[in-house]
Amino acid sequence: MAAWLPATIETLLNRRSIRKFKDEAIDADTIATLEAVAQRAASSQFLNDWSAIRINNPALKAKIAEYGAQAYIADAPLLYMFIIDEHRNARIAQSKGIDPSSDEFGLKTSYRFTQAQNDAVLALHAMETAAFSLGLGCVILGSPLNNINGLIDLLNLPEYTYPVLGLAIGKPDQEPALKPRMPREMQFFENTYPADADGTLDALPAFDAEVHQYYDLRQADRPVDAFSDQIAKISRQDVSNKTLLDKAAAQGFTLDK
Amino acid sequence: MAAWLPATIETLLNRRSIRKFKDEAIDADTIATLEAVAQRAASSQFLNDWSAIRINNPALKAKIAEYGAQAYIADAPLLYMFIIDEHRNARIAQSKGIDPSSDEFGLKTSYRFTQAQNDAVLALHAMETAAFSLGLGCVILGSPLNNINGLIDLLNLPEYTYPVLGLAIGKPDQEPALKPRMPREMQFFENTYPADADGTLDALPAFDAEVHQYYDLRQADRPVDAFSDQIAKISRQDVSNKTLLDKAAAQGFTLDK
Repeated sequence: MAAWLPATIETLLNRRSIRKFKDEAIDADTIATLEAVAQRAASSQFLNDWSAIRINNPALKAKIAEYGAQAYIADAPLLYMFIIDEHRNARIAQSKGIDPSSDEFGLKTSYRFTQAQNDAVLALHAMETAAFSLGLGCVILGSPLNNINGLIDLLNLPEYTYPVLGLAIGKPDQEPALKPRMPREMQFFENTYPADADGTLDALPAFDAEVHQYYDLRQADRPVDAFSDQIAKISRQDVSNKTLLDKAAAQGFTLDK
Repeated sequence: MAAWLPATIETLLNRRSIRKFKDEAIDADTIATLEAVAQRAASSQFLNDWSAIRINNPALKAKIAEYGAQAYIADAPLLYMFIIDEHRNARIAQSKGIDPSSDEFGLKTSYRFTQAQNDAVLALHAMETAAFSLGLGCVILGSPLNNINGLIDLLNLPEYTYPVLGLAIGKPDQEPALKPRMPREMQFFENTYPADADGTLDALPAFDAEVHQYYDLRQADRPVDAFSDQIAKISRQDVSNKTLLDKAAAQGFTLDK
């Protein structure tokens, strides 16, 4: 790795999830900066097909914390839910004579849904990185999706919208250790996905051991499981409450197309 | 917006897609830094369920350029395809007694597919941001997905993997203008998705006019269409060659679950 690194790369290399925040509000200028940064991220074919809901109503925060089963969400000074948003584009298309309920409105198909999801994540990551560079802490939240329908109701998400991820931001009140990452050769390949026989898992036992030495502040009394054990455990988790097709269809998306 | 901004935020606010690169290779130290940064991004439940293929074989680059119908892809000094990767985790789960073809292997379901896609995009955006901070230019590539099956064959993507986005990186050989973004109030909402009657599209005519003054270097002889006209046009585009469910099923994913 290069000996000299710009501040941006230092920020990115030191990223860790922060799940405990000081009870201090984030000022309006900072919020404006973070949101402007998110908007500047790339957008597939310039569709700008995402939005974000800034949640500052304590009752809503508490409800999202309940959906996510993560109490700290309720205490986040700044909380966002990023969503796929083809509702805005449907209204615009409608103003140009396209009936969104017809097949002519192609922004509700699986390809557009996927790309809009990507765009939402690009924007969220830009915001996360900007927040870290300002000395703030963040955690990306998938857990509120434990209750996708609840979230849709709570935030009044209309047709052609769908929740993607949340982002909690605040002044950090904890200092977690940097979490291990697998050897680069296990995750970056050259020109082809390697065959199983090519030894891509040779480094796994050492990585398992390294992960098993890491302490998570959420369970500070014992090291986390080895990576392989975590994978096996999560493989068996029941996620049948989070199926995509039925919930996206209820929001007007035609993911079979 | 705050008067003083850290370098990271300046980098993010000045992001623009670069589609023309100098014919200069990127050195190995820089590549190592960019890849380390990508690995440091957050990963849902620490599944690390993405990988990236670094493509430096000119014949492969040319083929991907052909799939994307974008000649500049072939000239990118550094080219990546980021993929959803539950193949690695399937092998790990198998070593722990789980049969990936059975329902016990839950990492092939729609929820995990979606989260793995998010993780791939987080990693890609971290790499994009790091590259910009080093003075490199990038463009995120959705266009190779015009031929998803071709891409899967070309890169030998095995069961439980799926292409997400490409990233082309190099020393910039063009200076595109910063592209307009919609007013913040059209994309960020407070506590609720606003009702259509709430005037969220009031600023659209002004935004349409602003976009219509922007020149894209790809078609430098005329300004781009107004935003509304672009939305209407893209809404009508045929994307039936990019359907998700059939192609993901062929890769072993059970997105109906």
